[in-house]
Amino acid sequence: MNPTSSPASPASSSSFSSGWRERIAAAHERIAPFIVRTPCVTLPAGSLGSPYQLTLKLEQLQRTGSFKPRGVFNRLAEARIPAAGLVCASGGNHGAALAYAAQRFGVPCEVYVPRVTSQFKRDRLIAFGATVIEHGDVYVEALEASERRSQETGALSIHAFDHADTLAGQGTLAKEIEEQIGVPDAVVVAVGGGGLIGGVSGWFGDTTLVVGAEPELCPTLNSALGAGGPVAVKTGGIAADALGCRELGRTPFRVLSGHDIVTSLVSEQDILSAQRALWEECRLMVEPAAAVPLAAVRSGDLQLRLGAHVCLVLCGANVAPAVF
Amino acid sequence: MNPTSSPASPASSSSFSSGWRERIAAAHERIAPFIVRTPCVTLPAGSLGSPYQLTLKLEQLQRTGSFKPRGVFNRLAEARIPAAGLVCASGGNHGAALAYAAQRFGVPCEVYVPRVTSQFKRDRLIAFGATVIEHGDVYVEALEASERRSQETGALSIHAFDHADTLAGQGTLAKEIEEQIGVPDAVVVAVGGGGLIGGVSGWFGDTTLVVGAEPELCPTLNSALGAGGPVAVKTGGIAADALGCRELGRTPFRVLSGHDIVTSLVSEQDILSAQRALWEECRLMVEPAAAVPLAAVRSGDLQLRLGAHVCLVLCGANVAPAVF
Repeated sequence: MNPTSSPASPASSSSFSSGWRERIAAAHERIAPFIVRTPCVTLPAGSLGSPYQLTLKLEQLQRTGSFKPRGVFNRLAEARIPAAGLVCASGGNHGAALAYAAQRFGVPCEVYVPRVTSQFKRDRLIAFGATVIEHGDVYVEALEASERRSQETGALSIHAFDHADTLAGQGTLAKEIEEQIGVPDAVVVAVGGGGLIGGVSGWFGDTTLVVGAEPELCPTLNSALGAGGPVAVKTGGIAADALGCRELGRTPFRVLSGHDIVTSLVSEQDILSAQRALWEECRLMVEPAAAVPLAAVRSGDLQLRLGAHVCLVLCGANVAPAVF
Repeated sequence: MNPTSSPASPASSSSFSSGWRERIAAAHERIAPFIVRTPCVTLPAGSLGSPYQLTLKLEQLQRTGSFKPRGVFNRLAEARIPAAGLVCASGGNHGAALAYAAQRFGVPCEVYVPRVTSQFKRDRLIAFGATVIEHGDVYVEALEASERRSQETGALSIHAFDHADTLAGQGTLAKEIEEQIGVPDAVVVAVGGGGLIGGVSGWFGDTTLVVGAEPELCPTLNSALGAGGPVAVKTGGIAADALGCRELGRTPFRVLSGHDIVTSLVSEQDILSAQRALWEECRLMVEPAAAVPLAAVRSGDLQLRLGAHVCLVLCGANVAPAVF
């Protein structure tokens, strides 16, 4: 684990951090008509090979199959949407959420995807009525293209994670956890750009241990904590379509640097094994990114007391099982 | 829909029905250490093509992937288990629950399966440590063989549904629903032998409408209600490994005949379409039997007021998605 050793300018972070619970509570009220209040399930002791009491937040059951609509609907609630509609870059999940919202509001939506995005996730974007444009090898190239496009057409560009309203939306998930199970001893969240962990940390502050779990091949948070700020990293592997950002967002980093955050890096093999265990033992079908928190727990990295109550966020299920 | 027109001997049924809530509450306390308290999720209006407000009871997340451990653990809690262990017949789900319980209690377990049971469900039984014996084309033939075997070896034969303790165990699911969402306007349950709907009806009595949803190809309840008692029917189709009993159990029928039960028969095509919708829209992976209640709602058979609150029980997820 890598504790935050040198928070970047703690004074300003602290003032930035204040007020998050109010923002998140306001966001929750705003987005309630559009989202699913996803349930938690607390597993019997010894489940999933964990020494801890596990509660799973079943956020993969959210509309469009990931947590992303929370941030998107909160962002759009405060925005004026132009006739040219919406545009974004996405590995798939943010794009699906934006396309879903655009469909509900009756405006057009363009989604730029990097080559790494699976055909399955592209088909889903199209099913929600979006226009899909492939650009570049990795997310950041698609992002640059989407921002140029926004300037050309006047469409509103909605970033996948680097905005305070987006973080506040994602933080509603943490508020629900607290309402559903109280404050656990730790909450473990997968990290890519940092929107989700930023929102979760904004809600819980220092009332619980927030753990950022990352694939070894997508270490954006770990690298940012080591360097004292977001730095560019290479990303790849089986969870890259959800977690493969070049660097952590500035907005999430400002929230996180006000608190004690720890990270855990997990191997590809451990992610696959955790994903499989969630299905075999619990009948939960999730995408690799959503299995990263369980992989972190099973790796022995957390070192909490035996029987500690740990909440794992299952953040998405956009895989294509061959059943139908 | 087929309302109960001629309940069989209502006077005796009524006395048999009394006391079910107490039995179920006692069962719930007894089995709590062994089962998952499965969550409910209430979907946004208009979800899954339903005119009703839908809550889904996610019982497919139960240990072993179906509701069956509730009945099994309650039955075993009251029984003396011989050294020869346990024996049963099962299309797969009851057998998995019994094998799981046998493993926990450290006793041997034999499961007789009919030819219709998939290799996937057999492998699962073996993984839980059971000995699997194929016997006969349909469930009832496997059942007869398992009962002969019990007499030979002295193993305790545990019927899949036709026992009051089993019904009381399954009824704990209904008690959880009431604790989680109150009493909805209707609860829709898939029916095979009737253990689950018997327990649900035992708990709710006439406080809500209990709907028995059946594949057209497995109409055990519909036929029993028409004939005034369980009658043999032919069974087949995609949900037969979970719902394909020759006839409704006597114990469930006695409970059900004390209340107003309605049935809905659904086509194979509607079951598949409902199963697919649960995945596409909600990221819930279930087996065909568990999609039967949604198929009934979508068929327009229920005729409740617009916006009525309907709870669908997702009873199992023992399918083999080709993801891993």
